[in-house]
Amino acid sequence: MNALALSYQERAAHCHAPQAARLLTLMHEKKTNLALSADVTRAEQLITLAETLGPEICVLKTHIDIIQDFTPTLTQTLVQIAKTHEFLLFEDRKFADIGATVKAQYAGGIYQIAEWANLINAHCLPGPGIVQGLAEVGLEKNRGLILIAEMSSAGHFMTQHYIRETLTIAQKNANYVIGFITQHALSSDPKWLNLTPGVKLEGGADALGQRYVTPELAIRQHGADVIIIGRGITAAENPLLAAQQYRKSGWESYLKRCAKPFLGPLR
Amino acid sequence: MNALALSYQERAAHCHAPQAARLLTLMHEKKTNLALSADVTRAEQLITLAETLGPEICVLKTHIDIIQDFTPTLTQTLVQIAKTHEFLLFEDRKFADIGATVKAQYAGGIYQIAEWANLINAHCLPGPGIVQGLAEVGLEKNRGLILIAEMSSAGHFMTQHYIRETLTIAQKNANYVIGFITQHALSSDPKWLNLTPGVKLEGGADALGQRYVTPELAIRQHGADVIIIGRGITAAENPLLAAQQYRKSGWESYLKRCAKPFLGPLR
Repeated sequence: MNALALSYQERAAHCHAPQAARLLTLMHEKKTNLALSADVTRAEQLITLAETLGPEICVLKTHIDIIQDFTPTLTQTLVQIAKTHEFLLFEDRKFADIGATVKAQYAGGIYQIAEWANLINAHCLPGPGIVQGLAEVGLEKNRGLILIAEMSSAGHFMTQHYIRETLTIAQKNANYVIGFITQHALSSDPKWLNLTPGVKLEGGADALGQRYVTPELAIRQHGADVIIIGRGITAAENPLLAAQQYRKSGWESYLKRCAKPFLGPLR
Repeated sequence: MNALALSYQERAAHCHAPQAARLLTLMHEKKTNLALSADVTRAEQLITLAETLGPEICVLKTHIDIIQDFTPTLTQTLVQIAKTHEFLLFEDRKFADIGATVKAQYAGGIYQIAEWANLINAHCLPGPGIVQGLAEVGLEKNRGLILIAEMSSAGHFMTQHYIRETLTIAQKNANYVIGFITQHALSSDPKWLNLTPGVKLEGGADALGQRYVTPELAIRQHGADVIIIGRGITAAENPLLAAQQYRKSGWESYLKRCAKPFLGPLR
């Protein structure tokens, strides 16, 4: 069964992780596969983005540790906005330590990420113990984990072997792992969500090695399910208009994919 | 020239990164190669550890994001204690994102890591842009970067190829990178410091995949310059006594290494 030939709704039935089914259902009902990467540095900016763009998105991706004036009120407010506008909160923490440490980083500290983030992500680089550690916190709180398989930055070290090993760890934790941060779908298995950063309507690159692909290329040919847009929206003159353009582009690309699935190799 | 045959003092002259020379000189003068991994969750516990064990160590390694009651006063206090007892502050953040993001995470947010941590670390996994991004913040503040080459956790994904690529990035940024988090020296080049976690007097393992080697094995045969001890000290009945034992074991192993350098393959 090829995931690219199925609707998000159909795929929800294949998921083992509750948060994967929840996100696919939400995307289907809300008709959006757009995630906003809200890389702002003030709490008020983050709240404004969440309130203004919330109706357009399925996921709000945060870097909570770049907010200069963070207080627990911020994350409580985000949880309320996410409930109102029906999107999931994804803290892009990129956990990358041994199991005992990530457990403490995920559950504790000032941010208490496990209390408010529906989704987090992690690198499998430290080995399977990192997923085990995060699962010990996240499973009972009904959270989901996204594994980082393939980054968008130039010269990354994620070889085909690395990506396959990441898939293996996902398969062993399918009740908790919802899918991947990746530039290309890792498999045709419909249960895995592929979330793709480095997407811009016009493609291109930044000065620190970030590279961009278009929404249509990402979704139709590379198997992206969720497109993660940051500066393409937040740096736009009119962020709401930009979000609506990305949403439309993303959704139309998905509909085209369903109507005429790409049958070439995904990678 | 084999780093294992040289004293810390002799090696300081080979360093390109100011913080590498500073740390080697400090280790030589203070006669300690012990780093404390202070994985506690309360500010007061961290301050007590820094004050009590400060005289024994060359580096205090923190996970600032697991402190439940963090305030900027904590890091200001740590800076003062580090000055009094002459050790460096190393925030074990394991940066692992694209250049633009790590810049913001390093300089900004609640923690403002660049303001107080002499040393930080990063995975090269995202590619060279991560080091470029961190250097744009750290170089002008006279900070140092440690690259994570080889973790101590079971089943990690750090292949020989991965480790060599990490060394290549270090070589291109030798004015900023002081060395590696590694289980084995990456090269015989005396300018690189090798900091080794997963060290315990009795060896062993934990329940989440962490594995331990003894100080003597780490220093004499694997080329460790700094041994990073966490639970072996902090979970001891008498942490000061335990720190003194580790310090003695680490320093004697170093003296033996200088007197009779191991000439076998380091890896």
